[in-house]
Amino acid sequence: MFIDKLITNIKKLENPTVVGLDPKLEYVPANIREKAFKVYGSGLEGVAEAIIQFNKKLIDAVYDIVPAVKPQLAYYEMYGFVGIRAFAETCAYARSKELLVIADAKRNDIGTTAEAYSAAFLGKTPAGDGEHKVFDADALTVNPYLGYDGIKPFAEDCKKYGKGIFVLVKTSNKSSGQLQDIVTQDGKTIYETVGRLVDEWGRDTVGKNGYSSIGAVVGATYPEQAKVLREIMKQAYILVPGYGAQGGTAKDVVQSFNSDGLGAVVNASRSIMCAWKAERWSGRYSEDTFDGAARAEAIRMRDEIREALAAR
Amino acid sequence: MFIDKLITNIKKLENPTVVGLDPKLEYVPANIREKAFKVYGSGLEGVAEAIIQFNKKLIDAVYDIVPAVKPQLAYYEMYGFVGIRAFAETCAYARSKELLVIADAKRNDIGTTAEAYSAAFLGKTPAGDGEHKVFDADALTVNPYLGYDGIKPFAEDCKKYGKGIFVLVKTSNKSSGQLQDIVTQDGKTIYETVGRLVDEWGRDTVGKNGYSSIGAVVGATYPEQAKVLREIMKQAYILVPGYGAQGGTAKDVVQSFNSDGLGAVVNASRSIMCAWKAERWSGRYSEDTFDGAARAEAIRMRDEIREALAAR
Repeated sequence: MFIDKLITNIKKLENPTVVGLDPKLEYVPANIREKAFKVYGSGLEGVAEAIIQFNKKLIDAVYDIVPAVKPQLAYYEMYGFVGIRAFAETCAYARSKELLVIADAKRNDIGTTAEAYSAAFLGKTPAGDGEHKVFDADALTVNPYLGYDGIKPFAEDCKKYGKGIFVLVKTSNKSSGQLQDIVTQDGKTIYETVGRLVDEWGRDTVGKNGYSSIGAVVGATYPEQAKVLREIMKQAYILVPGYGAQGGTAKDVVQSFNSDGLGAVVNASRSIMCAWKAERWSGRYSEDTFDGAARAEAIRMRDEIREALAAR
Repeated sequence: MFIDKLITNIKKLENPTVVGLDPKLEYVPANIREKAFKVYGSGLEGVAEAIIQFNKKLIDAVYDIVPAVKPQLAYYEMYGFVGIRAFAETCAYARSKELLVIADAKRNDIGTTAEAYSAAFLGKTPAGDGEHKVFDADALTVNPYLGYDGIKPFAEDCKKYGKGIFVLVKTSNKSSGQLQDIVTQDGKTIYETVGRLVDEWGRDTVGKNGYSSIGAVVGATYPEQAKVLREIMKQAYILVPGYGAQGGTAKDVVQSFNSDGLGAVVNASRSIMCAWKAERWSGRYSEDTFDGAARAEAIRMRDEIREALAAR
């Protein structure tokens, strides 16, 4: 079961943080870019190759200290099918290093269409020669706007294949309140209502640690809302974006954890991928040692969140 | 501007219906499958090739009678990167036949991530050798749960590249009401609230026909809600799924049109792709002449909706 695998990794490493793999071309160091462009040209194929090499170095730098990585699909899809091939290779490489893969794709649709997305990311796709694991991620982020019809096909594959989903509840962006903070007739906000649904949807995928494989996304930038949601969704693991570059602090993210020290994983992407450029690491790392900086920053983040959890 | 191109096509063909390209493997006729499998094997590559050939035959059968096609991304993504290549080839082939392409991907994210999705589908992706059109669709479906931060990057590319988006407002599925029908404190439903936002978001992309390139998705299965939304979003073009196989009738879809006979496009996927299997066409078409059946059904659908519009 996904959630138990995740918790096992988190406990073993004493680290509830995950590294986002959002490989924007400008993040990829010049030497990796140039090497890839030399062989594959400087078009989309070359960029896709550069992304694979960049991700592999990042994974090599953190695989023994973080429980999971979270590739963001948009940064692969933007390079077309070669970008998607790079995504698939990234997933395979992460798995080979025993990292869990949370595909951040925010997919949503209904019925057989949602089944098709789920086959791509979590389950298997039938072809003429039998079933194929396509991306074989461990978990997928999904959007709840379509109601349970848009969740059920994924939830069923979670049970069948031991996978997980994280449902968007309260997102980290400024305008997330436009819909999510609307107060309904019964005095609840939409995010609370969705939180209640997530709690309900996850009841039959609770693992041995008391958490469900149907988790939630709650942004670090909304600590007060996280506190409320933590109460509503007692068994949901919360994936927390918005730490670091988006402004969420360690104190903010603590709101998403339960008193057992579990219940949340915090993601950082840019602050780790581009750590070598940060003032904090200036003089100690360069573009050529970006992976060393990424590891140092991942350790720093782990320790910062550990301390914030211990201090509360 | 997307919306004016769409309206020009609709007026020229007197046809407000679009054909969904949702190529499930079981929909692809045996002879196309076998031919592709012979050359590319019966794995994902063979399936992707079969999908391309299937789509080309469908496009050849309808390109002179419909204004646009609507490929559903999930049915390509499920085959991995070769499926995405088949999607890209399908888009290119449709464009070569002067069809508009509405990519049904329901993408959603914020900031630079939404920009990356938009680059893939609507705009351009920078690589080492300049900018690349990746899928170059004419329009994209998007999900509004994240608020305007999740819409703006797409809306900006609509202006920059003459493209369009259709924002999910009231979806066609049974459980769509779980979120979308919730009544807010001010007595409005969420779908009405989102409808108001879509109306607002689209005000600066209104074309010469009085319609905006920021459209909406409203399911044929909810005609009463469509009536309300038609009033709220006077300038939004409505993309109507759920006609045919999902139970929406011609009388139902008429609610999404304005009195000028414009304002909506109705999608049908399975009923056209698999028309040869339908009782209506039995004895007249076979698996080998599935494309003739698709054309006959597309014409029948066009005429049925024309008549329903004339009769109201």
